[in-house]
Amino acid sequence: MQTFSELLKQFENYFSIHHFPNRAKNLYEPCSYLLNIGGKRIRPVLCLMSHELYNPLSESVWNAAVAIELFHNFTLMHDDIMDKAPLRRGVQTVHEKYDLSTAILSGDVMNIFTYVHLSKIDISYLKQSLELFNKTAIQICEGQQFDMDFEKRNEISVEEYLNMIQLKTSVLLGMSLKLGALLGGATDSSSDILFDFGKEMGIAFQMKDDYLDAFGDSQKTGKQIGGDILCNKKTYLYAKGYEIVNAEQKEIFNNLLSRNDPQKVNDTIAFYEKIGAKEHLLNEVISHTHKAFELLEEVPVVSKRKFALRELAENLLNREY
Amino acid sequence: MQTFSELLKQFENYFSIHHFPNRAKNLYEPCSYLLNIGGKRIRPVLCLMSHELYNPLSESVWNAAVAIELFHNFTLMHDDIMDKAPLRRGVQTVHEKYDLSTAILSGDVMNIFTYVHLSKIDISYLKQSLELFNKTAIQICEGQQFDMDFEKRNEISVEEYLNMIQLKTSVLLGMSLKLGALLGGATDSSSDILFDFGKEMGIAFQMKDDYLDAFGDSQKTGKQIGGDILCNKKTYLYAKGYEIVNAEQKEIFNNLLSRNDPQKVNDTIAFYEKIGAKEHLLNEVISHTHKAFELLEEVPVVSKRKFALRELAENLLNREY
Repeated sequence: MQTFSELLKQFENYFSIHHFPNRAKNLYEPCSYLLNIGGKRIRPVLCLMSHELYNPLSESVWNAAVAIELFHNFTLMHDDIMDKAPLRRGVQTVHEKYDLSTAILSGDVMNIFTYVHLSKIDISYLKQSLELFNKTAIQICEGQQFDMDFEKRNEISVEEYLNMIQLKTSVLLGMSLKLGALLGGATDSSSDILFDFGKEMGIAFQMKDDYLDAFGDSQKTGKQIGGDILCNKKTYLYAKGYEIVNAEQKEIFNNLLSRNDPQKVNDTIAFYEKIGAKEHLLNEVISHTHKAFELLEEVPVVSKRKFALRELAENLLNREY
Repeated sequence: MQTFSELLKQFENYFSIHHFPNRAKNLYEPCSYLLNIGGKRIRPVLCLMSHELYNPLSESVWNAAVAIELFHNFTLMHDDIMDKAPLRRGVQTVHEKYDLSTAILSGDVMNIFTYVHLSKIDISYLKQSLELFNKTAIQICEGQQFDMDFEKRNEISVEEYLNMIQLKTSVLLGMSLKLGALLGGATDSSSDILFDFGKEMGIAFQMKDDYLDAFGDSQKTGKQIGGDILCNKKTYLYAKGYEIVNAEQKEIFNNLLSRNDPQKVNDTIAFYEKIGAKEHLLNEVISHTHKAFELLEEVPVVSKRKFALRELAENLLNREY
């Protein structure tokens, strides 16, 4: 049983090997560029951690962890095009540094390399692993589609918002845990509990993100407060706001959304506090966090083996940055 | 043993079942749109045909055939973005009919559905099939990258041109045949010969395409003659032209390439005839066609079982449209 930081170090070592062939430079260099700008590597390490609940790390789980991180980076490369994002982790996105065609094709080939690693999983787990991975990959595409659909709409229900973040963010955390556990020899029922733990953690994590955007401390988050508010992003606060306002407040809300002045952020934050959206959000974060820890307790493994996962979840969910 | 048209009919029936979930409409409708505008379905039918050399069609080979056609369509959807193509088969391309983000994300999910079908292949063939498929998929991305790289260059060697068309076009034909054969129980050596047969056929096919663009009959091809010449596309004639011209002819060639007037096409065609590029191309088409038929003869299966493949190759390679 190793801690997150021990496994992270091991993963970074393993992952830093040269992934791509030494040819077609214009295809692979952008892939390496994106991988080299770093990342928290939470998903692959979750996969390794849940595997270690059951068995020492195997060749299969290393391949699964690499596949997960490659897939995640492929989605980032393509999402950045769709979101017209100029920067990622403070440096140029691939389509900005190179061009659109490069970001499409390099993303495509990185997705295929995901399957190169998956296909190395031990034959006794291969079909099941592929089915689980494919199902999740499809859900992630659907989540991204819903997120884009939301941009063209005004009202989004809390239910729709929850469905979108589950698909776009949470299922990959859940799948990473489930796949690691399965490859470690866990039963279906145990690995399903780990999936749900990851899903609840993902929901709480994303909602905390929404919370910090409006109510965080910019000194700690390192981001300008109200970024989501400025671009009318469909966050929990936005969806819940529309759900709980009365007719009079709705008019105020619509007016806030139509504004572009410097006071928009502060006025909207005050509005979310006044109508109770902030409180609802905090309750949701607490409730999903609580649910996540409950699920982790339910995993039929002696408590001390779960220490590393518990610690990681605490760090992720109690963060103020 | 069935003919191409019999298998094509069966494939169209099988393929016309609803591929995608009945949700996330904006994600899946563009996929269905592209699949429904049709196509020659040569690759999946090649897969079925080579399987039938050895055994009656199995569930695995049907899944392989569907995977191959889905993958091919995914590459078309993304290639059309990169090539800025407004039309495909006379109707709007996906990025034109919908938008850029849609064409990226719908292509991505179609690629994942490729692997949904591959993962249904019988477990005894699964790893081998995935490895073969992934290798080919990577080569196709590399071929597309080289094709894009060529756009930014002036001189391309015949060797580079050959390498590009092999990666971009031929290996998928070869892989379709090889995968079908393997799933039918063929030995590695037999399936390798079928791969090479497909590769030679693909090279001859692509070169014939280059030939017809300049020397075809527009009444028969249904396309304006000289489309490639107008946009200085890096075809065999272009690459060979640069290889065989003397200093004086090179100046004429460069001048032709810099022109945009209505006589450019006719003058370039005449130039290619004069310097012998046309003859070289015809010889290459004949040589690769000949090689393809030789390889087909070598496949250790009684001759009459290979009738359908021979007939298809003849139709593909002797076409004037």
